[in-house]
Amino acid sequence: MRNVTGARCVRCGRVYPAEPGITTCECGGILDIEYDYDYIKTKLTKDILAGRRTTSMWRYRELLPVEEGTPETPLRVGWSPLYEEPALAAKLGLRRLWVKDDGLNPTGSLKDRASAMAVAKAGETGAKVIACSSTGNAASSLAGNAAAAGLASYIFVPERAPKGKVAQLLTFGATVVSVQGDYEETFELSRQAIDRWGWYNRNAAVNPYLSEGKKTCSLEIMEQLGWQVPDYVAVSVGDGCTISGIWKGLKDLYAIGFIDHLPRLISVQAKGCCPINRAVEFEEDLRPMKEDTIADSIAVGVPRNPDKAIQAIRESGGLVANVTDQEIMDAQKLLGHSCGIFGEPAGVAAAAGVAKLCRDELLGENDSVVTIVTGNGLKDVANAIKFSGEPIRVPSDMDRLLQEFDRLDIHPER
Amino acid sequence: MRNVTGARCVRCGRVYPAEPGITTCECGGILDIEYDYDYIKTKLTKDILAGRRTTSMWRYRELLPVEEGTPETPLRVGWSPLYEEPALAAKLGLRRLWVKDDGLNPTGSLKDRASAMAVAKAGETGAKVIACSSTGNAASSLAGNAAAAGLASYIFVPERAPKGKVAQLLTFGATVVSVQGDYEETFELSRQAIDRWGWYNRNAAVNPYLSEGKKTCSLEIMEQLGWQVPDYVAVSVGDGCTISGIWKGLKDLYAIGFIDHLPRLISVQAKGCCPINRAVEFEEDLRPMKEDTIADSIAVGVPRNPDKAIQAIRESGGLVANVTDQEIMDAQKLLGHSCGIFGEPAGVAAAAGVAKLCRDELLGENDSVVTIVTGNGLKDVANAIKFSGEPIRVPSDMDRLLQEFDRLDIHPER
Repeated sequence: MRNVTGARCVRCGRVYPAEPGITTCECGGILDIEYDYDYIKTKLTKDILAGRRTTSMWRYRELLPVEEGTPETPLRVGWSPLYEEPALAAKLGLRRLWVKDDGLNPTGSLKDRASAMAVAKAGETGAKVIACSSTGNAASSLAGNAAAAGLASYIFVPERAPKGKVAQLLTFGATVVSVQGDYEETFELSRQAIDRWGWYNRNAAVNPYLSEGKKTCSLEIMEQLGWQVPDYVAVSVGDGCTISGIWKGLKDLYAIGFIDHLPRLISVQAKGCCPINRAVEFEEDLRPMKEDTIADSIAVGVPRNPDKAIQAIRESGGLVANVTDQEIMDAQKLLGHSCGIFGEPAGVAAAAGVAKLCRDELLGENDSVVTIVTGNGLKDVANAIKFSGEPIRVPSDMDRLLQEFDRLDIHPER
Repeated sequence: MRNVTGARCVRCGRVYPAEPGITTCECGGILDIEYDYDYIKTKLTKDILAGRRTTSMWRYRELLPVEEGTPETPLRVGWSPLYEEPALAAKLGLRRLWVKDDGLNPTGSLKDRASAMAVAKAGETGAKVIACSSTGNAASSLAGNAAAAGLASYIFVPERAPKGKVAQLLTFGATVVSVQGDYEETFELSRQAIDRWGWYNRNAAVNPYLSEGKKTCSLEIMEQLGWQVPDYVAVSVGDGCTISGIWKGLKDLYAIGFIDHLPRLISVQAKGCCPINRAVEFEEDLRPMKEDTIADSIAVGVPRNPDKAIQAIRESGGLVANVTDQEIMDAQKLLGHSCGIFGEPAGVAAAAGVAKLCRDELLGENDSVVTIVTGNGLKDVANAIKFSGEPIRVPSDMDRLLQEFDRLDIHPER
């Protein structure tokens, strides 16, 4: 990889060669892939990018840690739409607002970007099997992307994992191990199995390549904005890997001169589980929290990647917002009603945070914001059912319909 | 619309001016939009198309029945991926096989193409409200596309409509009327309400513009194949609007000289509900059937658009295949395992039909086939749960995992 110089521990600073199979530093710290930006500048210009036909994350190949001969992964991951939403901006009192709908990725979440990268790197090592422990989007994205690439996947889930999510994994042909225990016990068994059989490891915050995949989301945002930097980029935060990936992409673009300054991050967590935001807000070390929120994809009480995330939020001069479940589900409706976008609870948490910051007047008419929807609402219909309200029930009778419209103060017009 | 000459009844041949609000012919027949292909040829060439950046159905504007000033609808509908699947082709014994994953549309189905068109035409009439009766993908796609465009939607569903689907409509801000009765009674109340308030009508097989939206799926397939015509295009068939739209797109491309011959269609229905295929196979008039299949999106016992569909299948020299629920769910797994694609039951029915025709040796090593996945598997997780099998259940204990792998004859390798 001519474009990559190594992998540096974010805790102790030690640098490792960027082998495809690297995991964490000896000190336990997470590694961060480092690039030769001078070299990349000779290979990638805005014009070259503008002429490129690839509409997937692989259009940013020069900024990705893969060998030149590594094939693009088969599923079309990335290049999700970025919608400008003037009506919603007006409602919230923002100058401009865009929504990036990453729920339209092949398996329905931003995690496809990380899993596609894992599949590419697994291919470089010659591995035929790739594994992780997860209940959610990491698992489904791994199972789908691995299947498409002809790799086997082994996925460890805690027994409480919802049946629908397990069914999706089984449909993708994954070998699913349901562990009678909690998430920690599940992770531990996956670790032992990965060690024993030498499977390629897609556990987040262990594999440093994953956030390099995720960063393509912010690369796209900036290209879709024509390299005009918004004031803020809002992301929902669980284990911290996504927001650090988003930040990495922005810094890459700054380093190669594609953008002239950096936006500020908005880190949104659930009020019932916000250890990263608490550490940022009170400038203290991270302490675990219990996981009390319906936004399961960001319910991470012991985040595995707090270092990079906290550093990113601080470095960007970012804002934090913690939102209640009710605020999250209000944001789900707000995005649905105003934009025709249906996100899962964790996926719309960032928008809930933006709305809250607007109410608190920390954001306002001078600000432009991009908010990322990280997962598709079809992933969690149960909560949508609970919060979306009820239809109007009538027999097939026009008079009764008129009565109901009248009672509910609905005035249909043409 | 310089590119459109009129709307002709497929039953009696009467031609109407192509007003935005036209519905069916006085004789009850369905209208078909007709184009001035000589004019279109002066405006659209393969080179022009190749240089176009729009990655949505609106890249084919010259072939669509909209006014020049009509804005593109906001959601990014279309330009779904077409994947070549050599491994699955080998498994089935086909020369070449591609899968078009239309489940990656904004609300998760091919119907987004029709709804986006309806929203565009509603805009031309100045309507502020758009309505339909549907339980499924037509409704969710209408609600999402209307919300994004700032239009109100009124959607009539029979009381048996699944709660999850209703929740998605409510999240998109639709006014949902749940009718205590069957689908016919629901349709009747929607018809009366649409008449009374003059709402824009998005009922399939009433509005002739809908299949013009759907045809963009085959326009894309051909462009993505570099205008090399496959032997067959396989589609799952319910009310008949989708397959007739697919055929229309192919004929358009032939008429403007972009392809030099037409592929044959494969019409796939559920064995428990196959009135269109029965009419084609036995060369008889369409007779209603009961609706006995889990593939709810194609469970249409009284199809509202049989004329165009039957004509399309016959004209193309097409094949028909009727598949059991088990064959449908086997195809769901086959696409999941082999391709990393998760389709809803109706969405994978076409693939089930292709697999069946391969088993019956009606398709084989000389044939190239495109099969369309019309809807996302996340739309119907309940059936995936029933058919996908069970995970391996163990405590967090390596020895027990080894025992289970041994018992199940699983041999993990690297």
